[in-house]
Amino acid sequence: MAPGADARVRRPPRIDSVNPGGGTRVSGTTHDDYTDRYARRVRGMTASEIRALFAVASRPEVVSLAGGAPYVSALPLDAVGEMLAGLAAQHGATTLQYGIGQGAPALREGICEVMAESGIDVGVGASPDDVVVTVGGQQALDLIGRLFLDPGDIVLAEGPTYVGALGVFQAAQAQVRHVPMDADGVVPAALAQALADAGRRGERVKFFYTIPTYQNPAGVTLTNARRDEVLEICARAGVLVVEDDPYGQLGFDGPAPLPLRARRRDGIVYLSTFSKTFAPGLRVGWILAPHAVREKLVIASEAQILCPSAFAQAAVTGYLATMPWREQLKTYREIYRERRDALVTALADLMPAGLTWTTPAGGLFVWAALPAGLDSKAMMPRAIAARVAYVPGTGFYADGGGSGHLRLNFSFPPPERIREGVRRLAGVVEQELATRSVFGGPPPEGAHRRVRPGSDSPGPDLA
Amino acid sequence: MAPGADARVRRPPRIDSVNPGGGTRVSGTTHDDYTDRYARRVRGMTASEIRALFAVASRPEVVSLAGGAPYVSALPLDAVGEMLAGLAAQHGATTLQYGIGQGAPALREGICEVMAESGIDVGVGASPDDVVVTVGGQQALDLIGRLFLDPGDIVLAEGPTYVGALGVFQAAQAQVRHVPMDADGVVPAALAQALADAGRRGERVKFFYTIPTYQNPAGVTLTNARRDEVLEICARAGVLVVEDDPYGQLGFDGPAPLPLRARRRDGIVYLSTFSKTFAPGLRVGWILAPHAVREKLVIASEAQILCPSAFAQAAVTGYLATMPWREQLKTYREIYRERRDALVTALADLMPAGLTWTTPAGGLFVWAALPAGLDSKAMMPRAIAARVAYVPGTGFYADGGGSGHLRLNFSFPPPERIREGVRRLAGVVEQELATRSVFGGPPPEGAHRRVRPGSDSPGPDLA
Ligand SMILES: Cc1ncc(COP(=O)(O)O)c(C=O)c1O
Ligand SMILES: Cc1ncc(COP(=O)(O)O)c(C=O)c1O
Repeated sequence: MAPGADARVRRPPRIDSVNPGGGTRVSGTTHDDYTDRYARRVRGMTASEIRALFAVASRPEVVSLAGGAPYVSALPLDAVGEMLAGLAAQHGATTLQYGIGQGAPALREGICEVMAESGIDVGVGASPDDVVVTVGGQQALDLIGRLFLDPGDIVLAEGPTYVGALGVFQAAQAQVRHVPMDADGVVPAALAQALADAGRRGERVKFFYTIPTYQNPAGVTLTNARRDEVLEICARAGVLVVEDDPYGQLGFDGPAPLPLRARRRDGIVYLSTFSKTFAPGLRVGWILAPHAVREKLVIASEAQILCPSAFAQAAVTGYLATMPWREQLKTYREIYRERRDALVTALADLMPAGLTWTTPAGGLFVWAALPAGLDSKAMMPRAIAARVAYVPGTGFYADGGGSGHLRLNFSFPPPERIREGVRRLAGVVEQELATRSVFGGPPPEGAHRRVRPGSDSPGPDLA
Repeated sequence: MAPGADARVRRPPRIDSVNPGGGTRVSGTTHDDYTDRYARRVRGMTASEIRALFAVASRPEVVSLAGGAPYVSALPLDAVGEMLAGLAAQHGATTLQYGIGQGAPALREGICEVMAESGIDVGVGASPDDVVVTVGGQQALDLIGRLFLDPGDIVLAEGPTYVGALGVFQAAQAQVRHVPMDADGVVPAALAQALADAGRRGERVKFFYTIPTYQNPAGVTLTNARRDEVLEICARAGVLVVEDDPYGQLGFDGPAPLPLRARRRDGIVYLSTFSKTFAPGLRVGWILAPHAVREKLVIASEAQILCPSAFAQAAVTGYLATMPWREQLKTYREIYRERRDALVTALADLMPAGLTWTTPAGGLFVWAALPAGLDSKAMMPRAIAARVAYVPGTGFYADGGGSGHLRLNFSFPPPERIREGVRRLAGVVEQELATRSVFGGPPPEGAHRRVRPGSDSPGPDLA
């Protein structure tokens, strides 16, 4: 059987069932003889009721706005294939072999070139020696969790935040405290307050985890002024900043504000990935860390995976060295801008009053607030029945928040599918509103309020 | 710059600096401002004094018997390259995209075909549904550690055992108790004793970790009779068995005894990897686990890496489906048999009396015992100066044991290099013996004793 000849291989990727889609927990229905043998951290590994729904959501008749997948079909696939063939045929003795735990020097140099585009360059002490190559941004997060988190430690994170980061913090048995955001990103006063509160309780805050640019899932970006404030607040409290930046080079309306790491070199662990700017199927990400931390990260990574794939690393190195990656970034940005427009236009045209949303200046996601009283998780089965999928907002909170919100992805489905998805979702929301008015839920307070596309306001209940 | 044009990419892989080589700890000389922020598990991440030596050992003038790398140059690299090109060019929309956390169904089916060759088939309940694809055998071990180990838990493991497994157990803050081996593998009575001892102390033994076939590093294989005994002992004690089997299909003298998992389906978590039978550069391994455990493993893996590389998985799937992988296994076996013969013949011809070694019937490693009184770690700088490298035995023990032993790899260097390496090493050992007799160490008791190549006895001090 040729690879890909199998129907399972040829059908569209089941983007909904990996973490970027949010619905990643395994249902726990099987009888489990091993219960009393598991480690304590396993107790937190909860089954998700929506996993079964996501399996259905991957059917072709469903418009999935639930994923987090880039549109890799926009890559020059023939040319990529040719490059990969050469890597095996001419360099197989190294590309198919073990490599070193930190990652290949040539790739780490390429990564520094990529970061320099965002202003993280030699001027702020970024060097290949302080880069650790990882299995995507996810392993980067996991390594940071391993290095810094003991059970019971506190992590501050935006609310909402990346679902996969919550998975890491939970596996580390840490407690997450959310810090609210508004249209300008995380609210500095709220961050300072959260730190003060923890201090008063004698709690140990290990770091502030932030996605300052084109945030997943909220779609907002921390302003320049707030970036400096946030750095100042964390430095004063002696709290490490973990800056997660997968989307910074995917801005639609000009370049993003400088990353935190481009403003300060101490007390920041920076991570990013090629998953959104090149291809997630290779699983290549990285961490830029202070030197002492970098050394420990390498030991931790060796214990976890020995070394990242030499072949995948060579593929990215080759891509950066021989292919027009800056042009490809432009291509991605243009495709995503068009799709973002399709999404927010459809929301404005088709959604009932009372639904609000963010209009991201980059990245892959729109964050929407349902009319007051509606529950995004409870609504999911109806949405699936109407052949549209999204991620309920609760997935992005560690504390049960987010039930009034949902995340909509615009990077993967083409514009007409996006509009069709919104049309279906609008029908579902209208139905919910009608049901509620019959059975008498709370009055639709937010119903008169509406954020027009182009507005930056994520709505008052984003936080 | 073309990938691989860089000198660092073209030179031979630095097999010594990844865990299979054993010398993987990072030297901790950098000033570390983050010391008081690390998690407790980081305290156990010790720097290794031999890492600097291993960096030197990767120079071309050094004969390295220290690695654990397969001879991937024996692969049909052009054909592999052609296959990989097709995966990107024709199937890039899926192979470069996210996949599912458990791994692609087509690969899990292929893995079941591979396991069936070893007798782990549908008859003993092996099904693609109970397979989890991992980032090599290392992530497989790490996931098992995450699922089962709390700080302070006890793991029983052969002494010596795989250095990368020790890294996992240490990261999980577990305690390792070694169970001695002899030429027939782990000693069942000693295993029963270790379990009884732990029981008497009220300790919690979470599992027995074993590499029953062509063990790394000892090169011995658990006999058929002992396999059943070991299973019985663990079942009676209610202790899970973790069977690590990267080498089972690399036997030189006919097929290996049936794996433990082919004998019993309950209470065993089985893991293996394509690193030694195909190519480690793709980082593809797997776990076959009881269904309830498998579900938890998927959640844990998603929190760690989201999903394994779709491209690497498609590469292995394509390799199994379209290329003569059984023939390739034969090729590897023939090459390794020849190299094992070169190694044990050279040891017999060139080593001074008092050095003994195992003669493995498969796998990649010979385990040697130095003449009494010599220390393999102390000897390393002299060996490097004499341009030969090995892994000191202490790397394979959690308790400081192994100082009289060393591990020699025969899979990577060609036969003449192996012989040259042994010649150099023999000179070093002779020098050590001479120094010791001048400065008066303990008498070389073992000096008259010698295990001939072909003998199965690993020497009395293997345990
Ligand atoms: C904020 C954030 N961090 C990390 C990741 C994980 O990236 P990768 O797919 O490279 O593991 C994602 C993926 O969606 C993300 O949105
Ligand atoms: C016994 C054992 N288990 C696991 C591994 C790790 O395998 P991989 O390279 O696939 O991570 C090795 C590698 O040497 C090994 O010898």
